[in-house]
Amino acid sequence: MVTERRRPGRRPGSADTRGQIIAAARRTFAEKGFDKATIRGIAREAGVDPALVHHYFATKEGVFAAAMRLPMEPAMVVPRIVNGPPDELGERLVRVLLTMTSDVEGRESIVGMMRAAMTNDQALVMIREFITDAILGRVVEALGVSPLRMEAVFAQMSGLILARHIIRLEPLASADIEELVELVGPIVQRYLVG
Amino acid sequence: MVTERRRPGRRPGSADTRGQIIAAARRTFAEKGFDKATIRGIAREAGVDPALVHHYFATKEGVFAAAMRLPMEPAMVVPRIVNGPPDELGERLVRVLLTMTSDVEGRESIVGMMRAAMTNDQALVMIREFITDAILGRVVEALGVSPLRMEAVFAQMSGLILARHIIRLEPLASADIEELVELVGPIVQRYLVG
Repeated sequence: MVTERRRPGRRPGSADTRGQIIAAARRTFAEKGFDKATIRGIAREAGVDPALVHHYFATKEGVFAAAMRLPMEPAMVVPRIVNGPPDELGERLVRVLLTMTSDVEGRESIVGMMRAAMTNDQALVMIREFITDAILGRVVEALGVSPLRMEAVFAQMSGLILARHIIRLEPLASADIEELVELVGPIVQRYLVG
Repeated sequence: MVTERRRPGRRPGSADTRGQIIAAARRTFAEKGFDKATIRGIAREAGVDPALVHHYFATKEGVFAAAMRLPMEPAMVVPRIVNGPPDELGERLVRVLLTMTSDVEGRESIVGMMRAAMTNDQALVMIREFITDAILGRVVEALGVSPLRMEAVFAQMSGLILARHIIRLEPLASADIEELVELVGPIVQRYLVG
């Protein structure tokens, strides 16, 4: 689950406050999409001070990640991919994403997000904005890769998760992460570095 | 839509017979999955002679394609991909699949199949068997490629359809087919030919 940021010396609010903010965030994101939602608006909807939303989730992305039950925030995942030897970029990306979806919790939240995008138009808009701004845009900026190439990588990886964890095609579903890193890593590397 | 095979000199049955067979096929596939369903069983469920099922749909795959409203039968698509210059295999595969999903009807049937797989366990089983046997197995056999590599290609292409037609990420959603053939074709080629 997304790590909460508890700073010492600040009143943490009740456990219920956090749940209240998440519920308000879900309503706000559903109504306004990811881009137009604000911490201030979510706080208003929850009936709390905006500082309390910052206290629990630090950023709007953090609230979204918690609201969607994502296993990790993009702000934490992206550096793990982009930092390191440039010629192992593709391998790192494949390894990090497959590791994130290798436990039940991580898998279910990502599958839940895909399912929501496929069956609910409102959810689709906010998921699209979140993917574009918080995930892909961040890598595009860090690496200077073109958005189209980054989206081809997104296609490869989301399809891999679909085929491995949802459709469960064999031998893909049972393959070791490192076997897939070896197969798909160079492909992702080629998209990102050319 | 899937082309019907009408042979001259045979009683075609009423339009309703065809619909009756499709309805029976949906029930049969849902109950038995793709592998265990038979033309004979579908005919029994529809209360018609098996010859009539053959007459309308030729093969079990043909019945399945019609039942799932697929834009084309694998038996017709796969040869268009595997036949031709070997060094343009990847490009052909990308071009054929993106062209198939470029009209509303083709897109909706494939999106419908993905949605069914994600939300219904029974549908998932039959879709997995169909993808494995009728689509991937056929290419694996024709090209002598490993099943794992073929599944990586499936992941790339299903993710591309997801990102382009369902999530509609830009610039991917508006890109020309030929632009994507140029970007993704060499990747597919590399998976298939090494």
